[in-house]
Amino acid sequence: MEVVDHLAEERSKAEFDVEAMKIVWAGSPQALEVSDRISKLVASDPVFRKDNRPMLSRKDLFKNTLRKAAYAWKRIIELRLSEEEAAKLRFFVDQTAFTDLHWGMFVPAIKGQGTEEQQQKWLPLAYKMQIIGCYAQTELGHGSNVQGLETTATFDPQADEFIIHSPTLTSSKWWPGGLGKVSTHAVVYARLITDGQDHGVHGFIVQLRSLEDHSPLPGVTVGDIGMKFGNGAYNSMDNGVLRFDHVRIPRDQMLMRVSQVTREGKYMQSNVPRQLVYGTMVYVRQTIVADASCALSRAVCIATRYSAVRRQFGSQNGGPETQVIDYKTQQSRLFPLLASAYAFRFVGEWLKWLYMDVTQKLQANDFSTLPEAHACTAGLKSLTTSATADGIEECRKLCGGHGYLCSSGLPELFAVYVPACTYEGDNIVLLLQVARFLMKTVSQLGSGMKPVGTTSYMGRAEHLMQCRCDIQRAEDWEKPRAVLEAFEARAVRMSVACAQNLSKFANSEEGFAELSADLVEVAAAHCQLIVVSKFIEKLQQVIPGKGIKQQLEMLCNVYALFLLHKHQGDFLSTGCITAKQASLANDQLRSLYSQVRPNAIALVDAFNYSDHYLGSILGCYDGNVYPKLYEAAWMDPLNESVVPDGYHEYIQPMLKQQLRGARL
Amino acid sequence: MEVVDHLAEERSKAEFDVEAMKIVWAGSPQALEVSDRISKLVASDPVFRKDNRPMLSRKDLFKNTLRKAAYAWKRIIELRLSEEEAAKLRFFVDQTAFTDLHWGMFVPAIKGQGTEEQQQKWLPLAYKMQIIGCYAQTELGHGSNVQGLETTATFDPQADEFIIHSPTLTSSKWWPGGLGKVSTHAVVYARLITDGQDHGVHGFIVQLRSLEDHSPLPGVTVGDIGMKFGNGAYNSMDNGVLRFDHVRIPRDQMLMRVSQVTREGKYMQSNVPRQLVYGTMVYVRQTIVADASCALSRAVCIATRYSAVRRQFGSQNGGPETQVIDYKTQQSRLFPLLASAYAFRFVGEWLKWLYMDVTQKLQANDFSTLPEAHACTAGLKSLTTSATADGIEECRKLCGGHGYLCSSGLPELFAVYVPACTYEGDNIVLLLQVARFLMKTVSQLGSGMKPVGTTSYMGRAEHLMQCRCDIQRAEDWEKPRAVLEAFEARAVRMSVACAQNLSKFANSEEGFAELSADLVEVAAAHCQLIVVSKFIEKLQQVIPGKGIKQQLEMLCNVYALFLLHKHQGDFLSTGCITAKQASLANDQLRSLYSQVRPNAIALVDAFNYSDHYLGSILGCYDGNVYPKLYEAAWMDPLNESVVPDGYHEYIQPMLKQQLRGARL
Repeated sequence: MEVVDHLAEERSKAEFDVEAMKIVWAGSPQALEVSDRISKLVASDPVFRKDNRPMLSRKDLFKNTLRKAAYAWKRIIELRLSEEEAAKLRFFVDQTAFTDLHWGMFVPAIKGQGTEEQQQKWLPLAYKMQIIGCYAQTELGHGSNVQGLETTATFDPQADEFIIHSPTLTSSKWWPGGLGKVSTHAVVYARLITDGQDHGVHGFIVQLRSLEDHSPLPGVTVGDIGMKFGNGAYNSMDNGVLRFDHVRIPRDQMLMRVSQVTREGKYMQSNVPRQLVYGTMVYVRQTIVADASCALSRAVCIATRYSAVRRQFGSQNGGPETQVIDYKTQQSRLFPLLASAYAFRFVGEWLKWLYMDVTQKLQANDFSTLPEAHACTAGLKSLTTSATADGIEECRKLCGGHGYLCSSGLPELFAVYVPACTYEGDNIVLLLQVARFLMKTVSQLGSGMKPVGTTSYMGRAEHLMQCRCDIQRAEDWEKPRAVLEAFEARAVRMSVACAQNLSKFANSEEGFAELSADLVEVAAAHCQLIVVSKFIEKLQQVIPGKGIKQQLEMLCNVYALFLLHKHQGDFLSTGCITAKQASLANDQLRSLYSQVRPNAIALVDAFNYSDHYLGSILGCYDGNVYPKLYEAAWMDPLNESVVPDGYHEYIQPMLKQQLRGARL
Repeated sequence: MEVVDHLAEERSKAEFDVEAMKIVWAGSPQALEVSDRISKLVASDPVFRKDNRPMLSRKDLFKNTLRKAAYAWKRIIELRLSEEEAAKLRFFVDQTAFTDLHWGMFVPAIKGQGTEEQQQKWLPLAYKMQIIGCYAQTELGHGSNVQGLETTATFDPQADEFIIHSPTLTSSKWWPGGLGKVSTHAVVYARLITDGQDHGVHGFIVQLRSLEDHSPLPGVTVGDIGMKFGNGAYNSMDNGVLRFDHVRIPRDQMLMRVSQVTREGKYMQSNVPRQLVYGTMVYVRQTIVADASCALSRAVCIATRYSAVRRQFGSQNGGPETQVIDYKTQQSRLFPLLASAYAFRFVGEWLKWLYMDVTQKLQANDFSTLPEAHACTAGLKSLTTSATADGIEECRKLCGGHGYLCSSGLPELFAVYVPACTYEGDNIVLLLQVARFLMKTVSQLGSGMKPVGTTSYMGRAEHLMQCRCDIQRAEDWEKPRAVLEAFEARAVRMSVACAQNLSKFANSEEGFAELSADLVEVAAAHCQLIVVSKFIEKLQQVIPGKGIKQQLEMLCNVYALFLLHKHQGDFLSTGCITAKQASLANDQLRSLYSQVRPNAIALVDAFNYSDHYLGSILGCYDGNVYPKLYEAAWMDPLNESVVPDGYHEYIQPMLKQQLRGARL
């Protein structure tokens, strides 16, 4: 196929230095170099081909995943890749696999919850993949409520062993990735019972399968839980079911960093602060926010490029039709998502900093900022994953009918992404946690306790409760200060109003339950403020490169005003802005879309995604969409024969009116 | 498995007669009888099994579809089913197939656009399925803009034939269901060219495949366009690609009811009014609205039942945890969808009436209400399909992690449903059509022309522009009159404001383009009003049955106040209600949720869906979810062997540190 860049004209319109923006997106020149190099390595290797994925049966898809995982590991060893490079390689291979859980959950669990001794024993095995581990927490009947888990680990002082057991059907471990078919070991969460006393849920390292022939050990029933959403997506993962029938493990396989069981069966707490687990949570959620910006930017890249390629209506005098990206309806749905992708990128960067900050403070036994950091990461996980899941689907719709084809890449991207709204804390449950923290903060406002971190604006509640927005013209909405104050005022006023409603209940827990839908809205307003404020903070840094700052300011404004328009009701009902000012914000948004338009293609080029990684014909770099779609169609297994399998048995008898006698 | 109704207690709480509600939902006792009988017929026949669908490869799935279609047709003949019963049977088989297009588009196109003679020739063949047809309109490069189609039909007066040709790659027919592998014929839309003159797009009956051996006829290139979203979903359909290389058809295969080409090659219009096509459009869109209520109610039924089964948190003194349906956060997401399902059902019923009304008027050459009816059906198609697609995904999320399993039925329901947002008019394009009609209506308000049908409230614009909502207590929101007036005022005020903004543009088309995002919001407000008002009208009818009326009043109120809360910004910015009144509406909504709660299970039972049709373990009638999930897991092909295929090649070398030498 001739190589012509059908988007060259679009690229020439950009008003900024795309290479400089790539560095901003990647985080640093070094990060861009690594990412670019590894991405090309993966894209050029035929083993990592993925365009045929939707056509594979479950078994073939799974076998292909095992192959890619083994091959990736082999390449990592051969090329002596660093930890960062190895992680990037797995990222660009872009196929969910047991290794995600081995590296992302099993190893960190041992690191975080194991004693020095336990780490020394288990980590070297895990690092070399001499054992493969998973993280067996959720059960058939128990998800969000970890304290409700039913699996038991009963200490037997005679044998110095724990007996791991699944007492009921609903106690079957259910969902852990890598468990179904691959893992040799698991960190299993179970209720610790010593001497008849239940000490709550603790973690245990349990071997599941023979290291010789991979068969499940005695007392272990294990398998895959079956097909999931999408063609490829998480079907390359062996999410598993696991039941224990009185399986014995040595006492030293309980993860004992925070609490121990002694040889005598005595349950003890160590002097390691329990709050340490929150550090891990902040870490995991920070990676989820980073993933959100990746997934959303991928979808936006596809939809933006195809919106520039696709034409519909508006032909004048027989000339070409209008590019759909020129329609305001398209822009008003697409550009806020483009801005969100950048916004999530920067808030993710900031969360990385927050994690380091929290870690340092924990090491200095300073727990003061922990509740705020915990609430903030919970809220940001919820906001970014919900917006990303919805945004991917919106991008699919923005591609018209062709977005429904697997070759657009969007169906699979959606299917593989949506679990992020549920795992690591259901998004609504997390917002309720944020709301609880906010209500507490409000209740302490009079007490002299100063709100910290992302809630520090609440310290200015008195001002924010009565301030008046001074916007008079649409352009006034360009001022970050005005935007920020409107978001702060909205969040404070909603919090305070909710707190007042709560105070009318005699029983505060009942009130919390009754008003929980409102509390979710309060938490969302607070989280949106965080994202907006971190974007504005980012803009206060020095960011080199021609036109870069202007582009980011524009995107920041799009993000904020889009939210303001979408949640107009909040801003108006709390009197933060007037109806006139809301309308001006909308006018400003429209004019911002016109400013984004010429830069749109370059802004998605800055993500630096290879065609392999994007995995989308609609989003291909050169924009040569239609010939590629046409060619790809003929690769479908159904096209292997002109006359389909089943014609003689089913279609012919119908056409020939011979169904009556036919055996079907 | 022991049969225990785990939801019996829930069912006993219902405050109304479920059997009477089943009749309301079905439309009449007779409709319920048919639907119940056919649904059981399908559910009890092993050929119609569908629980294994997600595990089938594309080819196996497609062959299975051919089998089901042939078998269904055989049963229809054997049982001498009526047209209504046959349609119900296909509905309950619940697998997208070429027959959908044959009956739903090919036959109606010939009926609507063919002459008497053409109908007499082709319909008997189609009715007996001696030929199978599809509807070949959209092209690779052309979707929404039908006038932009490129395929040509050039009249050759020498041969008295049309030459059907695909002049470019983008003119390839693309998407038509049933085209890829099955159809013998198609109604092809092409630009009619006589004597060098282009007369625009017309329909032609074109044979594609041999009736002897099913091979494509000379000049015809045809195939399947490949995999689509979801595991099963539309992958059972052979959406096709089709190119013509100068294919000749006799002149009498142009559909000539509205315009003709004579033997001499003269292009003529008949005296049949062109507006007739709008009648068809109203019909098709009415069925789409009815389908929306089916799809949404299915998802709601699953999520509601599982929300009553599932428990999470809130255990006191070791007792059972709280049913998730008791959480206000769950109720505030689920119950509005339950109310929407009922609302869409009733507006669909009304659309059926509207179609009959339009048809009668057309026959009497009365076209006066046609533009309004057209705008109204376009808008309702857009509103109901968007809300349903989003609602299904929301229901999936409401089921927590297990909603992500194919066995929940929700992933496939989503994947098979979402194209409804794009086909038969992209939802945003449709709203723009509505907006155009509304702007025209507003501009004519002063002229003495009275707005008709669903826009007649605009005749009271003067009052609605300045009326004040008199709600003072939460319960006041129970008054339909107050609710209706708030929705009417909002719609009028938004329309008028937008019309005023439009008038500031010198060029009205430019203004329309620039303000199109706002215009979409105006159209949405108008469409929401229609649904609310038709629900209220429904309640003015006599509806027998214990407690039925109360339940429907409650649901109508939930639907309206949920919309009001969601779009608070509209109501506040236009001054239709005050912030205080908005807050009272929210209070009322909360108390309505408590009223819905005890009736929730019975309200979804009233849909009368069999477990087969629901296709969801989470939604099964008896609520015995966990044992069924556990059993189903072991059916996955991955569980055929304990040690997975690929272990020896890929996992073992990894564990044994023998990757370096391995060939992968």
